[in-house]
Formats: sequence, structure tokens, C-alpha cells
Amino acid sequence: MINPHFVLTAESLLPKLAEHTVTPVRLVEVVADPDAFQGWAVKDAGSADNLKERGFSKGDSFILDFGDHQVGYLTLSLDSIEARADSPVRLKLTFGEMPCEMAEDFDGYDGWLDRSWLQDEIMNFDILPGSYTLPRRYTFRYLKVEFITPARKYKVVFPDIHVTTVTSADVSKVAPLADSVPQDLRDMDRVAVKTLQDCMQTVFEDGPKRDRRLWIGDLRLQALANYETFNNFDLVKRCLYLFAGLRLECGQVGACVYEKPEPAGDDIYLYDYSLFFVATLYDYVEASGDLETLRELWPIALEQIRISLERLDDRGIVKDDPSWWCFTDWHEQLNKQAPAQAVLIYCMKRGLPLAERLGDTEAADSIRSSLDQVTSATLERLWDAEQGFFVSGEGRQVSWASQVWMALAEVLEKDANAELLDRLFAVNPDIRPMTPYMYHHLIDALILTGRNDKALEQMRAYWGEMVRDGADTFWEVYNPEDKKNSPYGSNLINSYCHAWSCTPTYFIRKYFV
Amino acid sequence: MINPHFVLTAESLLPKLAEHTVTPVRLVEVVADPDAFQGWAVKDAGSADNLKERGFSKGDSFILDFGDHQVGYLTLSLDSIEARADSPVRLKLTFGEMPCEMAEDFDGYDGWLDRSWLQDEIMNFDILPGSYTLPRRYTFRYLKVEFITPARKYKVVFPDIHVTTVTSADVSKVAPLADSVPQDLRDMDRVAVKTLQDCMQTVFEDGPKRDRRLWIGDLRLQALANYETFNNFDLVKRCLYLFAGLRLECGQVGACVYEKPEPAGDDIYLYDYSLFFVATLYDYVEASGDLETLRELWPIALEQIRISLERLDDRGIVKDDPSWWCFTDWHEQLNKQAPAQAVLIYCMKRGLPLAERLGDTEAADSIRSSLDQVTSATLERLWDAEQGFFVSGEGRQVSWASQVWMALAEVLEKDANAELLDRLFAVNPDIRPMTPYMYHHLIDALILTGRNDKALEQMRAYWGEMVRDGADTFWEVYNPEDKKNSPYGSNLINSYCHAWSCTPTYFIRKYFV
Repeated sequence: MINPHFVLTAESLLPKLAEHTVTPVRLVEVVADPDAFQGWAVKDAGSADNLKERGFSKGDSFILDFGDHQVGYLTLSLDSIEARADSPVRLKLTFGEMPCEMAEDFDGYDGWLDRSWLQDEIMNFDILPGSYTLPRRYTFRYLKVEFITPARKYKVVFPDIHVTTVTSADVSKVAPLADSVPQDLRDMDRVAVKTLQDCMQTVFEDGPKRDRRLWIGDLRLQALANYETFNNFDLVKRCLYLFAGLRLECGQVGACVYEKPEPAGDDIYLYDYSLFFVATLYDYVEASGDLETLRELWPIALEQIRISLERLDDRGIVKDDPSWWCFTDWHEQLNKQAPAQAVLIYCMKRGLPLAERLGDTEAADSIRSSLDQVTSATLERLWDAEQGFFVSGEGRQVSWASQVWMALAEVLEKDANAELLDRLFAVNPDIRPMTPYMYHHLIDALILTGRNDKALEQMRAYWGEMVRDGADTFWEVYNPEDKKNSPYGSNLINSYCHAWSCTPTYFIRKYFV
Repeated sequence: MINPHFVLTAESLLPKLAEHTVTPVRLVEVVADPDAFQGWAVKDAGSADNLKERGFSKGDSFILDFGDHQVGYLTLSLDSIEARADSPVRLKLTFGEMPCEMAEDFDGYDGWLDRSWLQDEIMNFDILPGSYTLPRRYTFRYLKVEFITPARKYKVVFPDIHVTTVTSADVSKVAPLADSVPQDLRDMDRVAVKTLQDCMQTVFEDGPKRDRRLWIGDLRLQALANYETFNNFDLVKRCLYLFAGLRLECGQVGACVYEKPEPAGDDIYLYDYSLFFVATLYDYVEASGDLETLRELWPIALEQIRISLERLDDRGIVKDDPSWWCFTDWHEQLNKQAPAQAVLIYCMKRGLPLAERLGDTEAADSIRSSLDQVTSATLERLWDAEQGFFVSGEGRQVSWASQVWMALAEVLEKDANAELLDRLFAVNPDIRPMTPYMYHHLIDALILTGRNDKALEQMRAYWGEMVRDGADTFWEVYNPEDKKNSPYGSNLINSYCHAWSCTPTYFIRKYFV
């Protein structure tokens, strides 16, 4: 269901990307080390300037460290020494965000997502001396170069290797933190800002390595972090118009959209994600005051609420489904019913003030009435007073996600809401948060209920531990208890710069400085 | 020793390449067949149109046949079916002039030239639907596509695959052969013309697959074939000026020059090749009548004769050397002394009329005097009257190459010269011609001595057999007795479209129609 006006509006907001040239800072080796994150330590192996003089040939290899996470286009200048190059040069190039990508064999990869997300090529370079800018955009800190040739009379040197980075984020807009902010929070903030920056391209990508796409679950969190840092309203607006312009056949906002070769919707519908259109619009209007966009997109937002209400059963509870109908978190055992119910309430509570702001009293009345019914049904059917927890699904599962989302939806009274979270930590149910995305909501709920110290403690234990584990940008997946964890069957394919992990800067700048 | 005026003149003659779009004609399989050339037969496997509908995924592969030898740039249009592509597509692409390149493993290659001459890449394609024109020029008839991904929800189809061929040859200038010309000669002529066409780029390349360079030994033969077919004088002129403008430090014309990134000489000096500058200039002036170029380049030609004469020993014989100082032919046992001596005489005999034409009597007198001395020395020292053959080197080797080149140099009287070749066939010395390059000189010598029937018989036995073995273009190396023969340790790396093999069209059009 394409709305050409919305898509054209989105396209008119296509940002021009800022480019910067970054050169490698050193040569490194990646060595096995049981004490290092995922078992791989990075060791200094000399100056990158060595590449200008040291000649390489068949069987040689080196790993360059670009000093930080980079998103951009690689330029390699190749020349020959000892003799003129009389044959093409055949190289294997492997790009990695993380040491594991330099050390583990991609061809042995056996995960559930396509191996093509791993960034390696085998390329031939015909003319030396020559400067080659590779056509693909890569996401990496490390670059491994392996020499398949030359084997004969000449050797290869590199007068220049650099990456031209791209981003739509304007780093000059990020206010410096006050000197009084503790170093560990400054580190978390820096890594979070870099995460957001590298995901900000012509849309808010979920991860610039994988899958380089605009997902609304990520967008919502990126937009929040953006309002505290780069303040790029147009990019949020562009993304909102893309989602509005490329809905699914029955009017739902899709879970993600493709930008290229031209904007197009995907066929994935997720209950929570479609509702987040309302919340993201709400946050955008709060931050920007852009009522014109609200006016244009409000019917789409309202439609999401209406469609979502249709999924309620006779009791007023969102119908459960064993399939992938609601995201919530990457957790195989997690039941999504209660979190979905909470997201519905959470988003209706943001739709209501939007309706009121526009003077759409009919919609406001309707939402208010639905809210009452859904909230009552929730308390009646999902609240287990005996346990003091919300339960989810036929199995009456008690998960962290259900409690966190119910807290965010403010289904209970203020004090009871805070006590719910206290109890959550005390009881510590088995079905825990798995991703930074779910951790974001936990932190958000703690702050909402006035548990700011606990929120900071959790941030330090989670994102802070990522920093201690060497994160240049925050990761898609992180389980401090199982550091090779991947929802995709291989840690190689995890995205190590992932939008939904960028919110420490949002919390720090909004609540902790 | 760069002469900027000559180089600039060469650059002013840079041709614009003609482009043509060629689409594949069918899918094929390459299967082991002991009766087929090199043991590989090509079998039909359906219409190339199948690629537009049949979906491919991980583990699949196909081989396309473009119907004839092609030199150009590949464009692949990829799209997805069953679902939208949600990940890059990783393909291995292997380009081959010959079935062996489709069937034999490149990674097992263990020849003496760099494996990078073998044409394969592993590439990732980020956006589907998308059209990708690969940056490198490839030389191929067959293209193998192997799918490393996608492994998940979508499959890949190819709405379009084509090659944009490039050549500086104008095929409209080639006169059709008379209907009376026998079919086997027509076939040889067609394959020879295509060989020349595909080698004619911005210079006369030796082979468009390998090593894509301007070698003067190839140039001389290409130019002769060109005067009978495409008649592109400017391209010959450009190449002569490149050689003249990029000589070695002591003034010799180098064996080859590089065009890119800018014109530059190589460091290879070969005795016969430097002298061929004289013969190539002579042939060019004969064909074009371009006296202005003769006037400008004559000093360079004369210098080659003077430098070559300096290598004569006290007896007036070219000094032998175990190293690679003279090309003559790819034959490990071949001694080059007598052939080099003959090439010196051959080229002086072409320098002389050039000097006379320019009225350079001093040079003419000098060449005439040297010719007398060198010819006398040759008859005295290298002619073995008892055997009736010319001998070469300390071991007094009797080779085909020595007799052929002495015949071309017309050292003996006319009848004796013809009898020399008759005797050569009768005795059949072990050191035989190995390449089409040496076979060219054999044919040329037979025609020179009036043995046209024998010449035709030899052409039919050699190039005719290549046609029967499936040549689309004539090969760099061909030994009907050992069809996997390679001077480089692997038949995979042989050039299967090689300039020095293109002269059947020269002989057919000049002598046999």
C-alpha cells in the first residue's frame, strides 16, 4: 500500500552524507587469549607506515587497525617494488568490526543468516601503480589483507590505504559532557554516540554491517538518542514518512522498509513494531514541535491503534500466537502476549495526547474508552496478584519483559509500579532480557519508577561491561554470562554496531548529568 | 629513455573502442571426455532464458556459453523470487576462454605465472533488484556462476546477463572471401580474424586474457594480418611510437611496453625483438606509404641495427648466452644463436631499402657493408655443408628454427634456400617449432621459397587442427602431439586468443585466394 506523496516527502529529505578520511593507526595481530572478549586479543604489530616500504607477496598477510569503528569506502593504492608489476594482484580482503572476524574462518560459518553478511572479497587488481576505491560500503575497524599473488618477480607496497567514512550525523552538534560526569559514563556516552553516528546514514539503519535496514523498533530508540545528541529532526521525519508511505496491504506499518534500489516495504508485520509508529511520532513531535508532520501522519498512527485493537479477544487480551508475530526481545522461550498488551497500552497513551493536540476529539474519546477497557482487562486477566507479577500466554509465563513493559505502560498505580520492578529484581525470573534493546526498556522503566540508582547500576553492569570488553560501538547482542551468544548461531554474524544499543547517551544526557 | 614527443604522438593516436552487446546463447555443462580437446567436452544444458525464471540458491551453479570468444565488460542484473532479497548475494564468478577453465580447479593451479591471470572473483552484490557492471575487463566464452548464498528465504534470477565487448578493429573493413575459397580455409580465416579483432584494443595486445601487453614480436605479425583485414594503420603507428618513445637505457627498443596507468617501458630486452622494430617499420611503410612516420622513426630503427651489430664476436657471429636474451620460440632446448644471426640479417635487409628510400646513403652504405660481412661470417661459421643445415651454439645444434630463420634471411641462394626447407622436412630434426609464432615463420619461409602447397598443408595440419579442436580464436601454444602442453606449467594459464597465432588470415588473403 504505497502512498506516493509520503514517499516523495521522504525522498525530499534524503540527507547528504558527510565524508571524512580515516587512515589506519597501526598493524595488529589477533591472538588467542582466554581472558580476552570472545577469546581473541589484539596485539600491536608495528606502524601502518610499514606498508609503504615492506614488500608483500604470495602467502603474506597483515591486519590493519583503523583505530575505531568505521563505516565507509576503502581506497587501496597499490604499487610494486623490486620490479614492475607484470601481472594482476589477487588479494583476499576481510573486514571486521571485531577481532573474532579477523581470527575465525568465515568459510566455516554455519549460522542461520546468510554468510554474505560477513564482509570478505577475493579481488584482482589489474594495474599497478593504481588506486582502487572498492564499490561496496564496509563496516569495520580491522582489515585483513591476504596475498594470493604476486608469486614472482615483484612485491606489493601500499603508498596509501584509507577509508572515506560516511554518516548523516553532524558530530559538531553533540554538546560536550560536563567535567563532573564520571569517566565510565563519559566512555559509555562516547561509545553510544559513535554507535548512533555510524548507524545514521540515509536512514537510521539498524546496523551498518547487518542488515543496513530501517526497522521501526530501532528507529524509535535512535530517535530518542538523536534528540539528545545530533538533533537531526529531518532524518527522523524522513523515516516516519517512509514507514507511512510503504505500509502493508491491510494498512499496518511494516516492521522494516528497504531504501534501495527504491523505497519499498518488506512483508514483515510485528504487532509491537507497528504500534511504535505512534510512539515514535509522539517522541518526534515532543522533540521538534513539528505539528505539520503530526497533522499529515496522524491518520496513519491512529490506524495502527485501530488495527492493533482488532487483535483483542473477547476478554480484551491480545491474541497469542506461536509464530513470530511480536518482537519484544531475542529470547526463544519468551511469550509475547503480555508485552504486546503492554505495548498497546503504552502506545495508546501516546496516541491520546496527539489526538488532543490536533483537536481530534472523536479519536481522543475512542482511544480513552479503549484504554479503559484494555487496562481493566489486563488487570483482570494478566495480573497475578498472588505472585505479584503479570503473566503471559497460556502457560502464564512470568518474564522480565512482561513486567518491564507493563511498568512502562503504567498499568499499575505509581507505587505498585515501582514495587513491581523491585520484586522483579528480587525474584529474578528465568526469562531475562537478552538484548540491549530489552535492557533499554528495563532502564527506561527503572527511571520512570524513580529507581534511577538501580538504572545506573544496570547500565554500568551491562553497557559498562561492553566498554570493558572493548566495544568501540555498542553491540546488537550481549550476554555478560555468555559472551559468544548469538541469536543467529554464530557470533561472527552479530552486528557489533547496533542502533538499539545506542541509548546510554539518551539516559546519561537526559537523566544523569 | 623516454622520448616525450614520441609518447605524445602515440597518445594522440589512442583509438576509441567500438562496443557491442553480446548475450549468452545457451547453458552448457563441461564433462570429461577422453576424445575431446584436453579431455573436456561441452554439452548443451538448455536455453539461457532459463536464468530469467529459474531461482538459484546456495550450492547451485551454472555455466553460460556466450557463443564465441569475447573481450569486454560483464553486466549482471540480479533479482529475487519467492521473497524479496534481504541479504547480499555472494557469488563466485569464473570466466574461461576454454572448457578446461570451467572444469579444472583454479585453486589447485601450480604453474609458473601468477594465478591472478586466471579469471575468477568472489563478489557480493548488496542490492536486489540491481544491475552490476563489473569493473574489470574479462576475456572469455564461458562464464561459471556458483552460488555461495542465498541460503534462506529468497532465490536469485537473472533478468539480464550480457557482455559489452570492446575492440579497436572495425569489422566492416574486412573483405568477404570469394565463394571459391574452400571451407576449411574460410574457417581458419574467420578464427584468425576474430583472434586479431579481440587482441586489437588500445594497443595490439599479445593476448587479451594474458598478458594484455604490447610485445613487438606479436605486433609485427598482428600488423601484417591487419594490413590484409582491418587496415588500421593508426594503431600500428601508435604502437611503433610507443616502442620508439620508451626505449631501454642504452637505446634498445624493449621487448614490450605497458600502457597503463601511463605508457612505460618494461626492462626486458630481447635481441630479436629489438630488431623487429626495423621489420615492423618496414612493413608499415610498405602498407601505408607513410613516409612522415618513417622519417621520424628511422633513427630509432637504424640504432637497433647498430646496437645489434655490437653483439657480434670477432668472427662476425652473434654471441650466444644461456640466459633469456633472444626469444625465437618457447622451446627449452632451443639454441638461439643461429636464429638471432638470421634475424639480424633479415632486419638489415629491411633497413636497407628504408635507408635508400629516405636517401640516407651513409646508413645504406653502412648496412650494405655490414650485411656482406655478417652473411659471409654466417656461411663460414654456421653453415654445415656436410649436414646441409645451419648449426647454432657451441653444441652445433640443428633446429627447425635455425633453418627457418636462415631461409627467411635468404642467406643461401634461391634454390639452395628452397632445398634447405625440403631437407628440413625430410630430416625432421628433434628441435621442432613449438608455438604458432614459430609456425608462422615456417609458413612464411615455405611461401618465400615457392613451397606454397607445403605451406598450405602445414597450415591445415596446424591451425586447421586447432579449428577441429574447437578453437574460437587461435591459441598461444599448440602442440598437436601434446594438447595440454604449456610453457608455463599449466594449460589453464595459456592464452587461448593470442596475437601471434592470427596470421592464417594474412597468408590466406595474401597468397591463397
